[in-house]
Amino acid sequence: MYSFKNDYSEGAHPNILHALLETNLVQEEGYGYDRHTRDAIHYIKQKMNRDDVDVHLLSGGTQTNLLAISAFLRPHEAVIAPSTGHIFVNEAGAIESTGHKVITVPAYQGKLNAGQVEAVLNLHSDEHTVKPKLVYISNPTEVGTIYNKKELMELRKVCDDNRMLLYVDGARLASALASEANDLSLGELSSLVDCFYIGGTKNGALLGEALVICNDALKEDFRYLIKQKGALLAKSRLLGIQFSELFRENLYMDLAQHANKMAKMLKNGLVERGVSFLAESPTNQLFPIFSDEEIEELQKDFSFYVWERVDENRSAIRLITSWATLESEVLNFLAAVTRICDSKTAAHHL
Amino acid sequence: MYSFKNDYSEGAHPNILHALLETNLVQEEGYGYDRHTRDAIHYIKQKMNRDDVDVHLLSGGTQTNLLAISAFLRPHEAVIAPSTGHIFVNEAGAIESTGHKVITVPAYQGKLNAGQVEAVLNLHSDEHTVKPKLVYISNPTEVGTIYNKKELMELRKVCDDNRMLLYVDGARLASALASEANDLSLGELSSLVDCFYIGGTKNGALLGEALVICNDALKEDFRYLIKQKGALLAKSRLLGIQFSELFRENLYMDLAQHANKMAKMLKNGLVERGVSFLAESPTNQLFPIFSDEEIEELQKDFSFYVWERVDENRSAIRLITSWATLESEVLNFLAAVTRICDSKTAAHHL
Amino acid sequence: MYSFKNDYSEGAHPNILHALLETNLVQEEGYGYDRHTRDAIHYIKQKMNRDDVDVHLLSGGTQTNLLAISAFLRPHEAVIAPSTGHIFVNEAGAIESTGHKVITVPAYQGKLNAGQVEAVLNLHSDEHTVKPKLVYISNPTEVGTIYNKKELMELRKVCDDNRMLLYVDGARLASALASEANDLSLGELSSLVDCFYIGGTKNGALLGEALVICNDALKEDFRYLIKQKGALLAKSRLLGIQFSELFRENLYMDLAQHANKMAKMLKNGLVERGVSFLAESPTNQLFPIFSDEEIEELQKDFSFYVWERVDENRSAIRLITSWATLESEVLNFLAAVTRICDSKTAAHHL
Amino acid sequence: MYSFKNDYSEGAHPNILHALLETNLVQEEGYGYDRHTRDAIHYIKQKMNRDDVDVHLLSGGTQTNLLAISAFLRPHEAVIAPSTGHIFVNEAGAIESTGHKVITVPAYQGKLNAGQVEAVLNLHSDEHTVKPKLVYISNPTEVGTIYNKKELMELRKVCDDNRMLLYVDGARLASALASEANDLSLGELSSLVDCFYIGGTKNGALLGEALVICNDALKEDFRYLIKQKGALLAKSRLLGIQFSELFRENLYMDLAQHANKMAKMLKNGLVERGVSFLAESPTNQLFPIFSDEEIEELQKDFSFYVWERVDENRSAIRLITSWATLESEVLNFLAAVTRICDSKTAAHHL
Repeated sequence: MYSFKNDYSEGAHPNILHALLETNLVQEEGYGYDRHTRDAIHYIKQKMNRDDVDVHLLSGGTQTNLLAISAFLRPHEAVIAPSTGHIFVNEAGAIESTGHKVITVPAYQGKLNAGQVEAVLNLHSDEHTVKPKLVYISNPTEVGTIYNKKELMELRKVCDDNRMLLYVDGARLASALASEANDLSLGELSSLVDCFYIGGTKNGALLGEALVICNDALKEDFRYLIKQKGALLAKSRLLGIQFSELFRENLYMDLAQHANKMAKMLKNGLVERGVSFLAESPTNQLFPIFSDEEIEELQKDFSFYVWERVDENRSAIRLITSWATLESEVLNFLAAVTRICDSKTAAHHL
Repeated sequence: MYSFKNDYSEGAHPNILHALLETNLVQEEGYGYDRHTRDAIHYIKQKMNRDDVDVHLLSGGTQTNLLAISAFLRPHEAVIAPSTGHIFVNEAGAIESTGHKVITVPAYQGKLNAGQVEAVLNLHSDEHTVKPKLVYISNPTEVGTIYNKKELMELRKVCDDNRMLLYVDGARLASALASEANDLSLGELSSLVDCFYIGGTKNGALLGEALVICNDALKEDFRYLIKQKGALLAKSRLLGIQFSELFRENLYMDLAQHANKMAKMLKNGLVERGVSFLAESPTNQLFPIFSDEEIEELQKDFSFYVWERVDENRSAIRLITSWATLESEVLNFLAAVTRICDSKTAAHHL
Repeated sequence: MYSFKNDYSEGAHPNILHALLETNLVQEEGYGYDRHTRDAIHYIKQKMNRDDVDVHLLSGGTQTNLLAISAFLRPHEAVIAPSTGHIFVNEAGAIESTGHKVITVPAYQGKLNAGQVEAVLNLHSDEHTVKPKLVYISNPTEVGTIYNKKELMELRKVCDDNRMLLYVDGARLASALASEANDLSLGELSSLVDCFYIGGTKNGALLGEALVICNDALKEDFRYLIKQKGALLAKSRLLGIQFSELFRENLYMDLAQHANKMAKMLKNGLVERGVSFLAESPTNQLFPIFSDEEIEELQKDFSFYVWERVDENRSAIRLITSWATLESEVLNFLAAVTRICDSKTAAHHL
Repeated sequence: MYSFKNDYSEGAHPNILHALLETNLVQEEGYGYDRHTRDAIHYIKQKMNRDDVDVHLLSGGTQTNLLAISAFLRPHEAVIAPSTGHIFVNEAGAIESTGHKVITVPAYQGKLNAGQVEAVLNLHSDEHTVKPKLVYISNPTEVGTIYNKKELMELRKVCDDNRMLLYVDGARLASALASEANDLSLGELSSLVDCFYIGGTKNGALLGEALVICNDALKEDFRYLIKQKGALLAKSRLLGIQFSELFRENLYMDLAQHANKMAKMLKNGLVERGVSFLAESPTNQLFPIFSDEEIEELQKDFSFYVWERVDENRSAIRLITSWATLESEVLNFLAAVTRICDSKTAAHHL
């Protein structure tokens, strides 16, 4: 049974584990003051060609989202998110738990646009409603699509026009940056948004997300909030070493390129076999549509999520590739599809 | 420069890193459903000889405390803690951040007693004040002392008499259990309290605390709260593997025994050299008192916290040993004390 | 300029003011322990023919909703509400501010039904989402419609089947109970829901809502929560006297009957004049549809909210009657409609 | 049985009730947009001789404190208060309920001083603790003492030096301003603090506190927070009319002068009779010390709080006078003291 369920089924990239071993008995300061955290932040800033951002290393995506959003908002301020946004759908009400409403707009291919932000603002005009203050998007989105530079610039503009903040959940940012469809560099991204995070957990780390605060007004006292929400690790070296490995040279992008390459091989193979998709994804998440019988057959050898019912007989499934995905298993999956579809065609012909 | 600042200066015990390496490429479920987490919980329960507790693996002490306490209390309910309690002094208001007041009583040798709980209850009799609901203690305490069985039984009784909960912060629980002064087994502890946690970060893990919920009424839906507070790791194997290593056989206690042995060697050596202490600690934290000059001398070769001013010329410092403390460095420290005190005595004799 | 904007444009029913005056200099206990609060609670229970509910007198609707809901839910539990629900649309995120998500379902004529509750539950099955725990409805709804006994029984059943709570926002409950379309007594209501409130502010009081907790499990320590949220009035006599006046005899229902009678007169008159409505309301809120020009004309003599655009040229307006609405002004309004429509018809004929 | 328990035993000053009656049937806008609220705010600003403050009319003291403090602080910021402060002792954890820790310092005669603020700041230097941001004091204090101009200027300075805010709980501010010992005008007070409130409930209103925000940086969006916390009254005229009556001319100060005059008569009478006091109060709260027997005798005819045990046989009681206190009852109380003490003396002589 091989799993295409997600990009966190394996442990860490071996380089990371070796770095942990090599440095293991060196005494370091804790709570983010270790040498490795310092190095990691330095390398990350280098990749953006800028030194005027604050970087904090945190443990997971939900933790990072709730920490950042609750740090930036006053009690009456709210978030605008697409209806498929991870904070709205899959984080157990973490944002509301910090006191803030998440207002949703219908997502189109996982995205929201500037016009939708304006429409929400028009409906929130006085103190009988919350005050929308922060736009939350994921890049790539929860259905694998990505924002291009033009779309981000439009969101930036509507935020500027309305004194709002733009925040990007980058749980799988590597896969977006490494995508053939991408036209954004890390540096450009940092200049268009107020804050974003660079996901590590889903790109080869054991755990870890690097939060990048670009807007000066949001930087003050952030370490207090990390501590208060229980997110300040005593052995911060664990995060520092991992991000050092990922960003010292090019490992972070190399891993994403592998994941994307495996996804592309899978996608091309499925297209060749006549399979259609729920969304057009240029990243490491694919949503091919199969019949219930086909899904049942595939589940005998592979594990994956059944994502969304499409019609009476068919559903989209979610396939995710990662830095660790084996090419042989991609080929096995495609072979299984061929076999299942052929037998079905054969059955039809009987 | 050798550090006695804390018990989290090094990485993890090598066995843990090797286990991470060995299992690294095996695909596992996430979010606590991996094989290692299952195993770890099984081993932990075995050490208590009971199966009727719930165990959750979390990342750090502040996270664990805020999660448990905010899960157990209704909005108007409050915590009683000693004035030296970690949640009151050193967690950046994490408990208050979840809406709950922490009421303190003066700590004696880091501890609170049943009589103090009753005194607080007498002052909180109606809805103009909060309602004290949970007693928080640390074992060992923040000054290294430990609770004996009799003290815990008295706290249990005052809690039962007043429908209150008893919670133990076990960030350094291993050192208490391994102490020569200890008369409590892990199983007995679990039968006396409503909830406690077994600290991993300060006893050889990279990160990790095992929360044990003993009271059935507190168990429901706890995973929702873990997720909502951003504490549910995608690669939960990281916690599972570590606690499996620590609890499969006897590593957890072995590491604490080493730490305590090093502390005892340090303590005996200091006593022999005429040094006095702030508190009588039978665990891995020591609070010897030195003059300002002596401290300055010691700081040339060793790092540690200057804890508390004792009089005009003297302060207590905090020395912590761990699973990784080198016997040679303990001897070096004692030699330095000898040297410094001798030279001082010599200076006096001139 | 006469206002049909709402049912809180005037002060209190004169009986209430006279009662305030008569008792003004008698010394009373505070914080809900005055004689009048005791009396009011007694009278309210009498109207339900039951003594086993807890009644608390509070100041306003948003305060009452947030207090009750945050008292009843654990941190990970959420509310299900219709998309038009007051807590979702018009309370500035008060519920989210206490940490709880409000999940909405599309409202039909302002209502939600049992099937929608089940559908939400099917989408919330594990700890990656919140746990739906309380169904919030308003009776009458925000568009003036009411729930009948059968609908409430179905909601009760789906709540019982899923260990959920049923809560009714009764800001305008009097108008529902006094409606010709109503088939529910106050006592029956109290036996079908876990908690509801009886609105005073919109039915003749200066301020005041009587929260009725029917479910024993929700009663404990509620006064602590009232105090903690800043809702415990020192001079609680202000609330006690008002609810005593409203419930000692029949004033509460008399006032609502007047409001409904005025609404019916208005509605019948509008129907006769060929006006159509956004929703079929049997209570004191009406949503007639007019053209933009007609609305502009009506606004010269009357104030009201323009509620919702219906098509390119027409909008629904909201007209509300109250205990204080003057019959002469209802007739004036109808005369104005006649005049405006006639002149329009005349204009068309030119 | 006459009550000296508090200053909210009676209803409102008759002028207020008459104003409610006179304006009762005039239609007004709600939610603070009525004519009376506008007038009241105008009158209050006039008394300060300044127009550059924001004034909001709220319902009660706990509500006002929690609203203001939670609006002004970021999640990690905390309050410094004297140990006798109302928010710490008597508001059911309302401030903590909004997420903020209240750090206390020992109160001397109910007050804190600038040096104590600095001492707290020295203990809170990094993100392992909360960040003290707001100094909370009450004027008069909870034991009836008042701050003079010099003390407030020192607190202002320590706040300015440390980017902190200064907040005054003025539940009984009228009694401080009307005290013979007072050297502060309302305008001066407003120039020394960032925010304060003018209590109405305890000085002749049915309910109501006027929050005055002096610091521009704290003004934005405050109405959103009022609404979100359930404190925005639909019939805001109720607050507007009352504060209009109190501040149009001099009623607010007249009522406090009566209360203080009654307190002074009581105090002088007690001093003449050899009674000593817990604190030296120049306002409407007195804390005379009696023996247990004397207290028991006094309780036969008067109600009051037994405040604090002083020694084995004696306690301080709290006597409060108000705008409604009858001179005849003050004389009755003094006569009772004479009678009781005489009989005791007589008994002693037997």
